[in-house]
Amino acid sequence: MYTTPLSIITIIAEPVLEDRLVHDLRRLGASGYTISDSRGEGSRGVRASDPPGVSIRVEVVASPEVTDRILDLLAADYFPHYAVIAWLSEARVVRGEKYLTR
Amino acid sequence: MYTTPLSIITIIAEPVLEDRLVHDLRRLGASGYTISDSRGEGSRGVRASDPPGVSIRVEVVASPEVTDRILDLLAADYFPHYAVIAWLSEARVVRGEKYLTR
Amino acid sequence: MYTTPLSIITIIAEPVLEDRLVHDLRRLGASGYTISDSRGEGSRGVRASDPPGVSIRVEVVASPEVTDRILDLLAADYFPHYAVIAWLSEARVVRGEKYLTR
Repeated sequence: MYTTPLSIITIIAEPVLEDRLVHDLRRLGASGYTISDSRGEGSRGVRASDPPGVSIRVEVVASPEVTDRILDLLAADYFPHYAVIAWLSEARVVRGEKYLTR
Repeated sequence: MYTTPLSIITIIAEPVLEDRLVHDLRRLGASGYTISDSRGEGSRGVRASDPPGVSIRVEVVASPEVTDRILDLLAADYFPHYAVIAWLSEARVVRGEKYLTR
Repeated sequence: MYTTPLSIITIIAEPVLEDRLVHDLRRLGASGYTISDSRGEGSRGVRASDPPGVSIRVEVVASPEVTDRILDLLAADYFPHYAVIAWLSEARVVRGEKYLTR
């Protein structure tokens, strides 16, 4: 099966940030995203307004260019103000070539 | 800690496909699977019948042989008809040798 | 964007183990964790008391030293008695240097 090497960015954030985050992901070129409700704790700085422990887990499959842009935005606009963590991992994506056009 | 290098296949699909997908995963040799309800958007083709944005996230730990079989089946039977995305990643699995007998 | 290579440990376990697992993760040096409710099946040995198919998916970002300690504990105290699976994957974590002080 032919696959394309791409990046997965996983973001853990407060639920109150969901709409803004989705808007930013789209604007920066993400062609899609998957969100699961979750809970947890972390040394993630201050929280805006959600109850402690309630989180969203956001996953984006994208080219390294797009995930880099997303990380830069998180660093500039989210990390200083909100409890957010983010990491990149590598994956081989089926029909991944369509993610490269963004 | 001794670990076995294995593949993780992650599949994002419509909830209506869950039973069929689980049946196929089992048939192709997956010894288990984990499903989380999720939501999101993507350029994933048409949707069968679930409300837009509602998805399942399916995760399978398996040998590369089994994940290859799963990808081939997704390509043949799912991708042409449903909104499905799938990717492979590498992991080191504790007590992973039992996944190699399938 | 500067990132730190770290380990992600993913643990699939019965919900009844959540409190104990979180306590152990903290004790072994994990600075945080993320839990999603999930469901599934697996060849994971006996189950303690939760209904079959109901699981939690626990994700921890940590240094390899901490994830090794967690795996050792799972092997000693959980795997012989409970239906648990666990795997390690690699990630590049934003602001990950704070995970290295644990």
